[in-house]
Amino acid sequence: MTTSTTLTIGELESRVARIFERCGVNAIAAGAVARVITAGERDNCKSHGVYRIEGCLRVLKAGKVEPDVVPSVAEGEGPVLRADAKGGYASPAYEVARSYLIERVKTHGLAALVINDCLHFSALWYEVEDLARDGLAAISMCPSYAVMAPFGGKRPLFGTNPFAFGWPRKGEHPYVFDFATSVAARGEIEIYRREGRSLPEGWAVDAEGNPTTDPAAALEGAMMPFGGHKGSAIATMIELLAGAMIGDFMSSEALEFMGGSSTLLPRHGALVLAFDPAVLAKGRGRDPVEDGERLLESIVDQGARLPSQRRYEARRAAERDGIALSPQEIDLLDRLETMGLDAID
Amino acid sequence: MTTSTTLTIGELESRVARIFERCGVNAIAAGAVARVITAGERDNCKSHGVYRIEGCLRVLKAGKVEPDVVPSVAEGEGPVLRADAKGGYASPAYEVARSYLIERVKTHGLAALVINDCLHFSALWYEVEDLARDGLAAISMCPSYAVMAPFGGKRPLFGTNPFAFGWPRKGEHPYVFDFATSVAARGEIEIYRREGRSLPEGWAVDAEGNPTTDPAAALEGAMMPFGGHKGSAIATMIELLAGAMIGDFMSSEALEFMGGSSTLLPRHGALVLAFDPAVLAKGRGRDPVEDGERLLESIVDQGARLPSQRRYEARRAAERDGIALSPQEIDLLDRLETMGLDAID
Repeated sequence: MTTSTTLTIGELESRVARIFERCGVNAIAAGAVARVITAGERDNCKSHGVYRIEGCLRVLKAGKVEPDVVPSVAEGEGPVLRADAKGGYASPAYEVARSYLIERVKTHGLAALVINDCLHFSALWYEVEDLARDGLAAISMCPSYAVMAPFGGKRPLFGTNPFAFGWPRKGEHPYVFDFATSVAARGEIEIYRREGRSLPEGWAVDAEGNPTTDPAAALEGAMMPFGGHKGSAIATMIELLAGAMIGDFMSSEALEFMGGSSTLLPRHGALVLAFDPAVLAKGRGRDPVEDGERLLESIVDQGARLPSQRRYEARRAAERDGIALSPQEIDLLDRLETMGLDAID
Repeated sequence: MTTSTTLTIGELESRVARIFERCGVNAIAAGAVARVITAGERDNCKSHGVYRIEGCLRVLKAGKVEPDVVPSVAEGEGPVLRADAKGGYASPAYEVARSYLIERVKTHGLAALVINDCLHFSALWYEVEDLARDGLAAISMCPSYAVMAPFGGKRPLFGTNPFAFGWPRKGEHPYVFDFATSVAARGEIEIYRREGRSLPEGWAVDAEGNPTTDPAAALEGAMMPFGGHKGSAIATMIELLAGAMIGDFMSSEALEFMGGSSTLLPRHGALVLAFDPAVLAKGRGRDPVEDGERLLESIVDQGARLPSQRRYEARRAAERDGIALSPQEIDLLDRLETMGLDAID
């Protein structure tokens, strides 16, 4: 018999923060990391929840992330806001920069947040949802590890390069999407492998660059972008805008930096673009958020789903009933809290 | 026997400009429209070339586009630049705004060009390529007509909502992509219908919202987005950012404005985002354009194609040999030049 343990959202966040502090991460960074990880678990995004803690700490133990840095924001008042993560986790850099970003967007109508030199592990929906709650539209993107070939190509070059968008709503959770530009997540291919099933056509190529439906061969080869040449183009754009343009690693360098091992989380930069619809629509005599509602209602009215609804449902349940963790998950938290990095392989 | 007639690029541009002037379009607008149409023909994008002239004039004859307006740019020096097309074609508004846009981007690092109240007919690659030639990265997007259902939906709501991106290269044509967020172009479905072939699965739904492979039923129903829920999400984002956010029509209103007939070109706004990589990468000690080259070379080295290469090849041929037009195309130009709008059905 396995019995789960239920924690409140606040309890889980405190436990996760204590673990990171126990491992030498300063309080500011530990708090930011704990908020993101707890939000993932709360929304039942298990791959970005408690599961992610060990990954974050493995990079720390490998000496590839700075535990005790305080991210800084470059001086200036223009619409380009640069946050230096100083080799630490990405989430503290976002938290330090967010109020400056919102101020700059309200001043200028739009602004770009450039985060450099960060260990990136969080889902992008967290940031775009956060900004949308302040009435802003936002786009977020970053490279990751070179595990995906360009459409028509044979070798890993792009990351799974996520792309996220948030839009404010009145009286509803923001409209948010966040997807990998790969046709499937790496974890999905792993599941096919374990279950001994063949992959759908078009998901991957093997190490020689030939199309394969063998999950093991796919994991040795390269994943393919979603949507053929169009998804491949978006993945290319993300490498250029959120890698080359911000003077930071693209996915191939992110992999090199970690010694060619994708078992460690990637280090690179990130780009967030934010817009104030009130400024962009100024003088037009229309309410952009109300116009947006009409569109979103028309989507739902014809039976299609809005993205993030599953997350929001899980969140409502977590807020009401708490977060249920398995004995294994609780055991992991216990071990990490008492042993710190010694509990990491 | 049909013999084609070869015009130089300049000759074609002059002829097209004369046609629009003959139809009451002022010289500034006629020149801008002629440049875009000629660029389409030059690059062998036949759907945006000479073929497009009649469509532009049909809307003029229907009284749905202003022939004699001069687009204006709103005062200010911030990174949001608003161009009022005043109900005229989009291209003159872009031409009037482009030098302001480039100046604002060089000042601020990024800027948004909002074009309102325009009759939109050109491919978006024209603008992003133009900006990339000035060393800028650029994204362009706009809604169009409600002809596409959301993923999981049944009824037309989105346009084919194009999305384009340009990136500067040294000594090479810019990296440019420009695609519809629909799985196929409407013209492609039309070709299947004429050839009596079935559509691939997933392209369209019929008027009742059921999946169909019958091209005629598809044309009565709705097209589907590329890449499933991901492409649908991008199409949604384009409606929100380049419609609602800029206080302009989304695709359903664009269709209503034209009396529900998609035989006339759509009226709406457009959003162009431009970035100066030199500003965004400042202080990082890296050259973003050189970094971009490494990525693009890695794509080509593994046998994948860069987008726009077919266009650039056609352009080289046109620059060397001129543009060959069929007797029907020449006849069309002749008739329009002598008869003006009387030659339009």
